[in-house]
Amino acid sequence: MLPFKTLLQIDSNSRQAIFQQLANQLIQLIQDGTLQTGERLPSTRQMGEFLNLHRKTIVSFYDELIAQGWLETAIGSGTFVTKTLPIHQNQSLLSLETSSSEFVNAPVLAEKKTFLDIPALSASSTSLRLDDGFPDVRLAPMEELSRAFRRYLTAGNPYTRLGYTDPKGSLRLRNFLVDYLNNSRGLRISTENILITRGTMNAVFLASQLLLNRGDNVIVGETNWSGANMNFQNCGANLLTVPIDDFGMVVDAVEEICLKKQVRLLFITSHHHYPTTATLRADRRLKLLQLSEKHGFMILEDDYDYDFHYQSSPHLPLASADRQGTVLYMGSFSKSIAPALRIGYLVATKEIIERLAQLRRIIDRQGDSMLEYGLAELLEEGIIKRHLRKSLKNYRQRRDIFCEALSTELKDKIQFNIPEGGMAVWAKFSAEINLPKLSESLLKDGLSISTGRSYRFDNQSFNEIRLGFASSTEDELLRSVEVLKMRI
Amino acid sequence: MLPFKTLLQIDSNSRQAIFQQLANQLIQLIQDGTLQTGERLPSTRQMGEFLNLHRKTIVSFYDELIAQGWLETAIGSGTFVTKTLPIHQNQSLLSLETSSSEFVNAPVLAEKKTFLDIPALSASSTSLRLDDGFPDVRLAPMEELSRAFRRYLTAGNPYTRLGYTDPKGSLRLRNFLVDYLNNSRGLRISTENILITRGTMNAVFLASQLLLNRGDNVIVGETNWSGANMNFQNCGANLLTVPIDDFGMVVDAVEEICLKKQVRLLFITSHHHYPTTATLRADRRLKLLQLSEKHGFMILEDDYDYDFHYQSSPHLPLASADRQGTVLYMGSFSKSIAPALRIGYLVATKEIIERLAQLRRIIDRQGDSMLEYGLAELLEEGIIKRHLRKSLKNYRQRRDIFCEALSTELKDKIQFNIPEGGMAVWAKFSAEINLPKLSESLLKDGLSISTGRSYRFDNQSFNEIRLGFASSTEDELLRSVEVLKMRI
Repeated sequence: MLPFKTLLQIDSNSRQAIFQQLANQLIQLIQDGTLQTGERLPSTRQMGEFLNLHRKTIVSFYDELIAQGWLETAIGSGTFVTKTLPIHQNQSLLSLETSSSEFVNAPVLAEKKTFLDIPALSASSTSLRLDDGFPDVRLAPMEELSRAFRRYLTAGNPYTRLGYTDPKGSLRLRNFLVDYLNNSRGLRISTENILITRGTMNAVFLASQLLLNRGDNVIVGETNWSGANMNFQNCGANLLTVPIDDFGMVVDAVEEICLKKQVRLLFITSHHHYPTTATLRADRRLKLLQLSEKHGFMILEDDYDYDFHYQSSPHLPLASADRQGTVLYMGSFSKSIAPALRIGYLVATKEIIERLAQLRRIIDRQGDSMLEYGLAELLEEGIIKRHLRKSLKNYRQRRDIFCEALSTELKDKIQFNIPEGGMAVWAKFSAEINLPKLSESLLKDGLSISTGRSYRFDNQSFNEIRLGFASSTEDELLRSVEVLKMRI
Repeated sequence: MLPFKTLLQIDSNSRQAIFQQLANQLIQLIQDGTLQTGERLPSTRQMGEFLNLHRKTIVSFYDELIAQGWLETAIGSGTFVTKTLPIHQNQSLLSLETSSSEFVNAPVLAEKKTFLDIPALSASSTSLRLDDGFPDVRLAPMEELSRAFRRYLTAGNPYTRLGYTDPKGSLRLRNFLVDYLNNSRGLRISTENILITRGTMNAVFLASQLLLNRGDNVIVGETNWSGANMNFQNCGANLLTVPIDDFGMVVDAVEEICLKKQVRLLFITSHHHYPTTATLRADRRLKLLQLSEKHGFMILEDDYDYDFHYQSSPHLPLASADRQGTVLYMGSFSKSIAPALRIGYLVATKEIIERLAQLRRIIDRQGDSMLEYGLAELLEEGIIKRHLRKSLKNYRQRRDIFCEALSTELKDKIQFNIPEGGMAVWAKFSAEINLPKLSESLLKDGLSISTGRSYRFDNQSFNEIRLGFASSTEDELLRSVEVLKMRI
């Protein structure tokens, strides 16, 4: 007879009833092969004595296992482990006592497709930070948003509102955005041309999955957003890099590539190049569209920081001049409200939107209905517009104060152009400064900055990084510059 | 000279300033080739007269375009379209006047990878519905959840809370779930073994992307959840079907396949088979695990309705007996709270979880931090537990009343077994009933039911469908049966 008193343990803090705890443990003994099929169990009276429990509890325990098919009774002769259970190789009792989470044999992942090694990102928990160019979530209309969420959860027809919805996103939000984009950004789209996504990363993922085959050529800036590069590489695409200068992507270099190779896709942040913040010059905008038409490549245009341009009005996106349907245009509210609220959109031809909606159905079924509802409410009420105006004003002041302090305090150490827009300064550190080391030592002073490793296709470190100014108050920016000065 | 008075239109309801409206329209004229590079513009005074606007407005209009690089001035001789802009083929003015959303040439999608045709789903807006087995969102603790969301948005350190977070999901939620799953479902996992997903669909997508290569064999039930089938097919896998009977998947048929073919993955809803609701018998559970170990295939176990079992206690999942790390185990709160709140989890070896977290980084960057926070709060406070207990009680009563009414009123027309758990009855309609037609005619009476098309791999219609009882009150269920009776 097995040592049931040792094998079956009761946890009096458990959320489960005792009979159920015992039943689950006995199933595991059967599954492990410790209890063999056909083996006879102690009578309910005996088992009650072993475990120091009332016989009624043991009856419930056995009944439960009979109902689930693990035990069976033979009238007059007792209770047995079901005979038709397949025989399990007996394992050492020892292995049962280690409640380790390590599985005996890890499954062989080597057989599987080669997979991209995507570096982990960790959130900064320092009190000061010059981040990658994130918005200041303290400015966001969180009270209004939480009221909208409450309305979503508690009002209206709950079955349709809280049930399964259109994978393309809220119709109300799409309709609002269509008008808004047509009016503000010179697009000429209707509701069938837009899909709500979970931020820009999600839009890039969807577009890459639809458009790219293994071996396709994709043109990107020699400095570029790693989130886009990783997605293209994950689809097996070849990345072809072109230089970026003070006027954005060097379009002549794009033409040179097109004369030699078939290009499938070009990725661009035309408003403010990520990471350098340069704005694509007007002649290059036109030329790029012409090249796209002539050589038959698609353009994936990421306009994530359209809302924050400080010199003139925001520039019209390439998509505003697209008459061929070759531009896929992306925007995001994650960068204008809060990174954790994942919502953006993708604009393309009806055919592409239909295909992307099909794809999204099997990725995550649908978007974030509550967030889409809340955003539509705040957009319609003009609250987002006011928020963006307030942010623009704050960010412009922060940019000016930060650039002024950098110039004054770190003139010989850091070179930069004042950015026309966006939320970060592209800062070149003097050659003698070791950025990864500096970044590490600054953490001790409570300031986090980038190590500079993720801005290039080859992930090589070079001495330029983004210093985000938008998420810090003027006082925090000045203190950050002080800390920088002390350590450099 | 171009007819600027006609070409440039001011919309007095626009959110944009007039100078900006004009600037954007002029950019489009340049982009379209209507205005050629080097072409001279009217003087600000002239343009002001054409448009009946103050000269100062025209100065702002021109200045904006000079700042953006579209126009340039030559001292003493006026304002011109920038000469270095590439020449655009002149288009008919007519095409400008059609503000159609149709692009001139749709991009060639034919070149791209063959892509699964995924049918659209439409939400039911009828007043009565016997759906696919959805939860009753009216029972969910929405007040508590909206209070938790408000705390998330307005309290704590906003930078870390509302910023970028761990792609694996909230650590607090993962820690809670690890304890909960170990205690209730006999798992032996730690935090490194769990990933928070956007519901089960998302977990299936992630697992498929990681595990499946084109041509891999995947075993599924001959009736199965189309969301899983579509994901496997999207990865290019071959679906091999096995019969389902009253005790779940016929495991002997699995063995037969394994003797002939290399199988990569088996998908199973072991607790209540989707769609038939049958529970996998104890001997088959053991046998399936043995086959998995012997033949080296992985098991993707979907336990989405664990919480709703009415006969005995919930059954321990296959994952509870997995010592090899071959079972990937999935659960969901979307099916126990509300479909629109997309949150679930996937349990696997540390190695798999790490890879999945990398993948999710480029799919949508991270999960829904606010929902993860809210759910963790409600789980810790015991609110979810109370909600599940209340739902279980309601659903059991609804099941009983619904099954009773079906038996009494539609005895000769509909055959079914009373389901041991889950949220739907698997109902076989008499052969003479045309289900798609019936489904259509019922809509007129305000009752929606399935057409029966999505339960099989081949999408063929057959006369069995799920009739969900959980989302309707007892009164709604009785009225639904009345409507059914009237039409059959």
